[in-house]
Amino acid sequence: MRRPVGAIVPNVDLVAQQEPTPTPDQMRPNEVLLHRLYLSLDPAMRGWMRNSPSYIPPAQLGDIMRGGTLCEVLYSNYGQLQPGDLVQDDSQNGGWSEYAIVEGKFCRPLPTDLPATIPITANLSALGLTGMTAYFGLFEIGKPKAGETILVSAAAGATGSVVAQIAKNVVGCKVVGIAGGPTKCQWLRDEVGCDAVIDYKQANNDPKIFQEQLKTALKQVNSKGFDIFFDNVGGFILNETLRRLSLNGRVVLCGAISGYNVEDQRSALVVPPSNYMALISLRAKIQGFIVFDYARHYKEAKRKIAQWISEGKVTFKEDIRSGLEKAPEYLNALFEGGNTGKLIVKVGDPICPSLPQDKPQRSKL
Amino acid sequence: MRRPVGAIVPNVDLVAQQEPTPTPDQMRPNEVLLHRLYLSLDPAMRGWMRNSPSYIPPAQLGDIMRGGTLCEVLYSNYGQLQPGDLVQDDSQNGGWSEYAIVEGKFCRPLPTDLPATIPITANLSALGLTGMTAYFGLFEIGKPKAGETILVSAAAGATGSVVAQIAKNVVGCKVVGIAGGPTKCQWLRDEVGCDAVIDYKQANNDPKIFQEQLKTALKQVNSKGFDIFFDNVGGFILNETLRRLSLNGRVVLCGAISGYNVEDQRSALVVPPSNYMALISLRAKIQGFIVFDYARHYKEAKRKIAQWISEGKVTFKEDIRSGLEKAPEYLNALFEGGNTGKLIVKVGDPICPSLPQDKPQRSKL
Repeated sequence: MRRPVGAIVPNVDLVAQQEPTPTPDQMRPNEVLLHRLYLSLDPAMRGWMRNSPSYIPPAQLGDIMRGGTLCEVLYSNYGQLQPGDLVQDDSQNGGWSEYAIVEGKFCRPLPTDLPATIPITANLSALGLTGMTAYFGLFEIGKPKAGETILVSAAAGATGSVVAQIAKNVVGCKVVGIAGGPTKCQWLRDEVGCDAVIDYKQANNDPKIFQEQLKTALKQVNSKGFDIFFDNVGGFILNETLRRLSLNGRVVLCGAISGYNVEDQRSALVVPPSNYMALISLRAKIQGFIVFDYARHYKEAKRKIAQWISEGKVTFKEDIRSGLEKAPEYLNALFEGGNTGKLIVKVGDPICPSLPQDKPQRSKL
Repeated sequence: MRRPVGAIVPNVDLVAQQEPTPTPDQMRPNEVLLHRLYLSLDPAMRGWMRNSPSYIPPAQLGDIMRGGTLCEVLYSNYGQLQPGDLVQDDSQNGGWSEYAIVEGKFCRPLPTDLPATIPITANLSALGLTGMTAYFGLFEIGKPKAGETILVSAAAGATGSVVAQIAKNVVGCKVVGIAGGPTKCQWLRDEVGCDAVIDYKQANNDPKIFQEQLKTALKQVNSKGFDIFFDNVGGFILNETLRRLSLNGRVVLCGAISGYNVEDQRSALVVPPSNYMALISLRAKIQGFIVFDYARHYKEAKRKIAQWISEGKVTFKEDIRSGLEKAPEYLNALFEGGNTGKLIVKVGDPICPSLPQDKPQRSKL
């Protein structure tokens, strides 16, 4: 149990522990006993492990690691939930465990009116926080207009791929996607429908090569600059893109995954946006946001994205892996670009109404 | 005649030349012959000398250097102007000369309804582009609300001091000003009315010391962070301030004078905003702007600022120096913090209706 330095070391930074399964007699009024079925793995988790103030308090050493989950209710002291209900645990307290007792008010029932073709795991991907992040970042910060050109980094990722598709198929933007490696780039072209694609790994962090890639992509979509840059990566890619924004360009600062695993933020590995002065002459902006601020509007956003999925305007990919005990190494894959689509851990199959089994696992920080 | 590298070298980068005075017979229809009285010296000039694309084309080698001027009309082929009229030359073509022939449509007559206590040079300072920059940057980008806390860098400068006073005396913000040296800081406290003052030179580019200064200033104004940072300086000060913004903080990127004289923007002298990731959790933004975009609204802004001057809500300082031939060295003072108030060169006294004298001077790049 320690805070990770650089990449997470499984079994050291996050340790699987066997603990007694919580029992119904431990439940207080208005609490529910949950059996977790799926755990979402997200880049933000690396930030939560850092002991510095942020938009939510850092995870504490010894705590069960925080994470978004889909769960079934096994027992309920909360009037609005019944055993067997499927819920999303929004308590932001724990998550990396097989069982948990939480306040019922934090458990959001999964929508029951989704088309049958949409799996429940979509509540952690296209209809989950990554989908919400795509929706609100694009519309509230990026404010795209038809015909504008948008650049999306980590475009093959869970958030980026939804951004790219909404921008292209709903708004009518020209979309350039950045991803690493030919497989992801091919997927961006063929499935996501990007108008141009950049394999950033080919630039090998050489600004000249990457600038040429940006220029070529702009030529392919017949644009002079990017009106919007939806950035999930930060660092080198952000810095170089600042020079290719259009007048009044908007950088939606969604994440900066390139820097999350680097402990010393002054390290040479973290390329800072030294080209920021371009913002002045371009009347451009870089704006950060946190999806939680839009929680009141999730429902509407989900309804829309679900509709776009039904209409074939948005497709999504999930990378579902088994075994909570392997979650730490799965999480590392996120920072190495090793996943394709939303990374989700399958924690267990529904067991309700039978009682929980012995020896559940929890991951402790 | 060459482009400057680093600080401007007088007589090398900008050369004074004697040329024949333009004569009325050289004037085409709709042109006027101007005698320049005052030349504005601005940080942006250093950028115009750089051979890279920006919001206006770079000055060309051999051109008369560009600059804003107040002039008297000596001869006019333009119906709306008469000899003796005082005008501002908005042609953005030349400026560093005693005489010039320009199209009449670019000459904006100075307002004649200003209070007698306001000198005409105010049209280059508080009522000029620096005043306009303060006004539109603050209101259009910063969007201040009463009770909010604003930090202003180069607060003793021509733009910063107007920002600080409008924010304090018109909007009702708490104002923290950054300047270099005890004299400027004293002026900020006593005349500008800043609630707290930071002498950045005391930090000597040490992040820890500067962070302590920011913390102390916030404590003095009883705030937890800066809602607005009106930044004229960039570099180190911007980077450190990113960590002290409030939720939904706005950085008004007005200028980055700390970097203007550094040729290689990747030089270690230019501290990039490596703390940009703070923008995400703070839902904050950095936004650039160019005052020219608001030209249609200058008139209204001037009227308001003139009123605030009359009411004692805005005071301003001018640093008027004599001799066009010394303008290059005066300009260097801007980048060394050597001026106090708006830097203006007095080029000549009104001579109308007598004819121009021999041997006028022009500064060529």
